[in-house]
Amino acid sequence: MVDVIVWRGDELDLLDQRLLPERVSYATYRDSRDVARAIADMVVRGAPAIGIAAAYGLVLGARQAARSVKGDDSFRASLREMSDLLKAARPTAVNLAWAVDRVLSRGMAALSQGGIEEALAAMEQEAAAIEREDIEGNMAIGRHGAALILPGSAVLTHCNAGALATGGFGTALGVVRQAWKEGKIRMVYADETRPFLQGARLTAWELMQDGIPVTLIVDSAAGYLMSRGNVDAVIVGADRIARNGDVANKIGTYSLACLAATHAIPFYVAAPFSTVDLATPSGDRIPIEERNEDEVRTVMGKGIAPKDVKVWNPAFDVTPAKLVTAIITEKGVITPPFEENLVKRA
Amino acid sequence: MVDVIVWRGDELDLLDQRLLPERVSYATYRDSRDVARAIADMVVRGAPAIGIAAAYGLVLGARQAARSVKGDDSFRASLREMSDLLKAARPTAVNLAWAVDRVLSRGMAALSQGGIEEALAAMEQEAAAIEREDIEGNMAIGRHGAALILPGSAVLTHCNAGALATGGFGTALGVVRQAWKEGKIRMVYADETRPFLQGARLTAWELMQDGIPVTLIVDSAAGYLMSRGNVDAVIVGADRIARNGDVANKIGTYSLACLAATHAIPFYVAAPFSTVDLATPSGDRIPIEERNEDEVRTVMGKGIAPKDVKVWNPAFDVTPAKLVTAIITEKGVITPPFEENLVKRA
Repeated sequence: MVDVIVWRGDELDLLDQRLLPERVSYATYRDSRDVARAIADMVVRGAPAIGIAAAYGLVLGARQAARSVKGDDSFRASLREMSDLLKAARPTAVNLAWAVDRVLSRGMAALSQGGIEEALAAMEQEAAAIEREDIEGNMAIGRHGAALILPGSAVLTHCNAGALATGGFGTALGVVRQAWKEGKIRMVYADETRPFLQGARLTAWELMQDGIPVTLIVDSAAGYLMSRGNVDAVIVGADRIARNGDVANKIGTYSLACLAATHAIPFYVAAPFSTVDLATPSGDRIPIEERNEDEVRTVMGKGIAPKDVKVWNPAFDVTPAKLVTAIITEKGVITPPFEENLVKRA
Repeated sequence: MVDVIVWRGDELDLLDQRLLPERVSYATYRDSRDVARAIADMVVRGAPAIGIAAAYGLVLGARQAARSVKGDDSFRASLREMSDLLKAARPTAVNLAWAVDRVLSRGMAALSQGGIEEALAAMEQEAAAIEREDIEGNMAIGRHGAALILPGSAVLTHCNAGALATGGFGTALGVVRQAWKEGKIRMVYADETRPFLQGARLTAWELMQDGIPVTLIVDSAAGYLMSRGNVDAVIVGADRIARNGDVANKIGTYSLACLAATHAIPFYVAAPFSTVDLATPSGDRIPIEERNEDEVRTVMGKGIAPKDVKVWNPAFDVTPAKLVTAIITEKGVITPPFEENLVKRA
């Protein structure tokens, strides 16, 4: 599998996912502000991946601060400012804030106990730990999730919750990969996922690289596919899971969950436990990012609608817990009642 | 409103809808085979519009035959062959076969009573009658349908069932136009309708031309929009309505109907009565066209997916009658039980 995030010790290389599948090309970052912009512009996307990228982004920011500020207090203030900037790059995914806060806390602790040099080293270690734990977590998600997949299954997925969205292996696609290894997968249907086309550009490409059978459909064909009995399970990732089990994920996830319920198809959400935000009681409290109207008016730079047409472009939607069959995490499969069981595993 | 189909007495001009909204450009046809190809290639689309285009296509074919064949029997054989070719251009919409058969029967009758010259004149009259009746029918659909729309409504539509899909005025958009005139429309939400983007390219453009407020969304955002209480009614067109009320329409219609049912939103189908096919008992007997995989792999010629990815590209889906609140025709609003009430109005 291609590397998504490459830390080189003094710079961060990000696979520019906007150019896939046409080109495998990396952009190099040395400035935390540029990393924040890359996250906002979706050079890197997927909740776990943006968490890891932001973690390294803060390491870069800390080094910039160490070079330019005088004294621990200025260093601290600078770290806080860069953390806020990185966390503001995208509002919905909670892993972003979680990862940044983890690196920040580690840095602050090391600063108090040692000094700036110690803080820099500790922060780099912490970012690397987040990345390593994410991959290990994905493998565990894959094992737990594959146990839910029946042999001969056709599964439907939305957006890209794969190796490209994580430190590697994937969440929803981690389950698919493991189930495929166990000989249980007949076909993966990939929604193309307008407007950003992560399904067409990323999921289809990623699965083909691994030789896993994949069929691409337009988003609106999912219901008809289900009605023909061709979907045995729906598996998606998540950008934030509220305390009650409501799930924010890529726009279109809610429609799929409704359709899965209508057709009595299990609907699984696969995500690292860091996606669970116990501080957010329910989905209606999750901020939903609305992105630029031109993302819908154009496809890959080509106009497809009147230039001045009004557009509503929410990047995510919220699926209520009652439509979710189970949440698959590295800590195991969590079933209803979600609030009780999420708190128990936290 | 722009003209979609222009009959010039000796040639047929079709607005090339593949170029909208960027360019308003007409292609000229003198050969029935080219008209069949234009229908297959979606230069003209929308069940009523392809019926009208095919009707004139057969008139062109009859003139070609009159010039090249000898005797009434050869003329008859030639007409039958051209009719079959036109009817085969697209398999799902029943108006296509209905319109071609109407012109053919009229021609055959005139041939028996008079001769080839009489047949040519009668066929041209019949094609013009189909076009005129379609526009009048659309106005009636608009009046009947607008009575179902509550003041202050936001309506959601899919694909383009507007003036561009008909002889003029539109079916689903005919209802919207009339309801707008009556001051009842707050907003029209247009699904972009991948893969051919009729919503983004045609519906948005057509409504903006008339100054009707329209907001474009990606297809997968419809469910989330409904969950926020922003849709008061869904109105779509139809390509074929079976005797039991099952509706074949643009891919994605079935998903919308399921979502409307989940959210207790009325789901209306607006179509001329010629769309009702009493000879087809139920939706599972309607042939569903599967189109080229490249329509999904590309957008306006630009690749958006791996070139060799497998694609499932059904152009239509079937919505079961139980999800349809009412069928709006020029003969009035038809409610369940559909089989009984459709037969009664036939």
